[in-house]
Amino acid sequence: MNSVESVKAVNQVDQTDIAEVMHALATDSRAAAAVLANATTDAKNLACREAATALRRRTDTILAANSEDITAAEARGTPGPMQDRLRLDAVRIEAMAEGLDAIAELSDPVGQVMDEWDRPNGLHIGRVRVPLGVIGIIYESRPNVTADAGALCLKSGNAAILRPGSESIHSSRAIHDCLVEGLRAAELPVAAIQLVPTTDRAAVGCMLTMPDLIDIIVPRGGKGLIERVQNESKIPVIAHLDGICHVYADGAADVTKARDILVNSKMRRTGICGATETLLVDAAIAEKALPQMIDDLVTAGCEVRGDVATQAADARVVAATEDDWNTEYLDAIISVRVVDGLDGALAHIAAHGSNHTDTIVTEDAATAARFLREVDSAIVMHNASTQFADGGEFGMGAEIGISTGRLHARGPVGVEQLTSFKYVVQGTGQTRP
Amino acid sequence: MNSVESVKAVNQVDQTDIAEVMHALATDSRAAAAVLANATTDAKNLACREAATALRRRTDTILAANSEDITAAEARGTPGPMQDRLRLDAVRIEAMAEGLDAIAELSDPVGQVMDEWDRPNGLHIGRVRVPLGVIGIIYESRPNVTADAGALCLKSGNAAILRPGSESIHSSRAIHDCLVEGLRAAELPVAAIQLVPTTDRAAVGCMLTMPDLIDIIVPRGGKGLIERVQNESKIPVIAHLDGICHVYADGAADVTKARDILVNSKMRRTGICGATETLLVDAAIAEKALPQMIDDLVTAGCEVRGDVATQAADARVVAATEDDWNTEYLDAIISVRVVDGLDGALAHIAAHGSNHTDTIVTEDAATAARFLREVDSAIVMHNASTQFADGGEFGMGAEIGISTGRLHARGPVGVEQLTSFKYVVQGTGQTRP
Repeated sequence: MNSVESVKAVNQVDQTDIAEVMHALATDSRAAAAVLANATTDAKNLACREAATALRRRTDTILAANSEDITAAEARGTPGPMQDRLRLDAVRIEAMAEGLDAIAELSDPVGQVMDEWDRPNGLHIGRVRVPLGVIGIIYESRPNVTADAGALCLKSGNAAILRPGSESIHSSRAIHDCLVEGLRAAELPVAAIQLVPTTDRAAVGCMLTMPDLIDIIVPRGGKGLIERVQNESKIPVIAHLDGICHVYADGAADVTKARDILVNSKMRRTGICGATETLLVDAAIAEKALPQMIDDLVTAGCEVRGDVATQAADARVVAATEDDWNTEYLDAIISVRVVDGLDGALAHIAAHGSNHTDTIVTEDAATAARFLREVDSAIVMHNASTQFADGGEFGMGAEIGISTGRLHARGPVGVEQLTSFKYVVQGTGQTRP
Repeated sequence: MNSVESVKAVNQVDQTDIAEVMHALATDSRAAAAVLANATTDAKNLACREAATALRRRTDTILAANSEDITAAEARGTPGPMQDRLRLDAVRIEAMAEGLDAIAELSDPVGQVMDEWDRPNGLHIGRVRVPLGVIGIIYESRPNVTADAGALCLKSGNAAILRPGSESIHSSRAIHDCLVEGLRAAELPVAAIQLVPTTDRAAVGCMLTMPDLIDIIVPRGGKGLIERVQNESKIPVIAHLDGICHVYADGAADVTKARDILVNSKMRRTGICGATETLLVDAAIAEKALPQMIDDLVTAGCEVRGDVATQAADARVVAATEDDWNTEYLDAIISVRVVDGLDGALAHIAAHGSNHTDTIVTEDAATAARFLREVDSAIVMHNASTQFADGGEFGMGAEIGISTGRLHARGPVGVEQLTSFKYVVQGTGQTRP
């Protein structure tokens, strides 16, 4: 055997090992899911609260682990907004802990009667929530996904297999330790929330091809990850694609509201999926409102790329290309276009939007109603910032992601979206004629 | 070019033609879906009612078309139960028409507010039903699927692409003509419900690989079709796999109820997915109840295959093999096993069931509650026949199928299950802190 063959042989053994490890891990998850499906609400809540306590107590350990990840990210030359996604501080860890406490406070979806009715023949039919089973979450840089996704799966009675990216592996392991502490305190199976023990990409391939052991895959990350998962998965995927969100400032807008909503939608945090990427301004108010809006953006540190009309309004605007309308910057950059009223805005969003979140600013109720009805996005808003596109802000406690698909879950994916249901039919001996 | 090459060349041209034809057809569907999403309830209902009227008026034409399909099926030596699925008569056509009228009577799901709530910051959030878009239905022998699926898609605001099997093509075309008559009467786009113009299997391959033009695929038919669709589809699939349904006669059963429910569950119609395939009898009542149950089944014309205990109860019982527990007969055959109480029944169903429909017959409320909670099937029943596993019987008007998957739709798939939703957020200028 020459050295190349030897290396190949070693890799083959490794790949086999990974397949075996992943199969054993998922088998444990399936067994844990059967226990979780009948776990009490109290036990699940206790696990969340004890995990929150552990997060707070271990803040220093988590920050130390996070700084390992950050150092590696800096060494790789990771861009600033990506580093922002990765970075933890005491405030963000406390927010994670509060997220877990909030999930403990949520109603337990499992066993909820979603709907019930009687049939003329006396049958009573109920639709009752049940867990989905085993959920695989494949994510990249944001370490808080470990806590949010793990606890959301637990509360909804599902076993979770968490596969963080190598970028956040140290942070994720430190957070996962806290989740396991919570599970132990509640005497729930520790396999209820498992972290994939290797960052080898082969582990992802294994997860995507075990439909008997994993019921649903939730990828969270960049386009490359999502596309790979969607192409390779033999398991249903709840995917979060681009967030090309729009603010449309209508001719009947209150300009002060429009300016506040615009700056908040774009600049509050630029690296999140609900950040606005494109401003559409009704030509009817462009002359009055556009110069102020551009000035607000530039003052806030935003690069403005505009069409000809926008460039004419302010010398600091650079020319937008066709690509700009289809780009999720996730950075302090915005594209701006002057459109011909609501119809122009609807046409632009239909052509360039990503069906995520779009908002209209207007005082005209009829115009707002048409925007809300006709824009085909998971979240449509009237006089509110697109940065509210978030499960926590919606009152769901926390979210595992925002689905841009139309099946099963659309928009923020919280505990209810992580359940299925069954029909329970109660009779007194009925037979069908 | 020799003759083989010549045939190949012709087929290649045909395949290209089919791809072009299917792309053009699906493009028309996408355009129709945009119109349907905003169609009035009145227009959709009128189309359903006028289609029902056309079905009744054209009964003779439909029966003539159906007899062409039946003649061909007989010539192919199609088994009896399959011919039963294919066969139409005046009663079944009237039932189809009544199904369309019932769909017209249903509430329009589109625009329904599924849920709404206020946030502490004053945002009002509503979750509103919207259509899925374009639905591809790929089915085999049952011609009534054409009417049910077409009307259900229409009522839920979706465009439908119907691809019947070659077995039922004449019947399906005659029924589709009635649906088109309804669309014309309501001035809705005729492309709202399209029938694939060719029975070439390549058309199915095209449907499964147009994710930009078709939003969801619903296959209805045998295992071979479902597996092909699930393997090849680049589009989410709502699938109906096996219906290996169980009747469990518990030790605390009312034996008269158990006998009635058993015979109805197995023999009312043997070719439907909700037909029972396996009887489980608690050992505690086997001596008392099993001989009567076997006699009822044999008298009704059912072949009984049993375990050793069942064979001992009646000489007419033949030995069941391991395969029998995993077989959906869709015929007048049943497998029977004596089990050790509820735990034995739960273990058997977990090992051999298909997560479709299972019923317990018992007068013990606690035993029933445990069966209903622990059996992981789309439909779980207490003291009722498994033949009620049907969208119409559930009050949904009609169903496009019964989903054995856990995502989006589980159990009967009616108009509500053919919708997605969007979040509508109403603000007064809120920005996110």
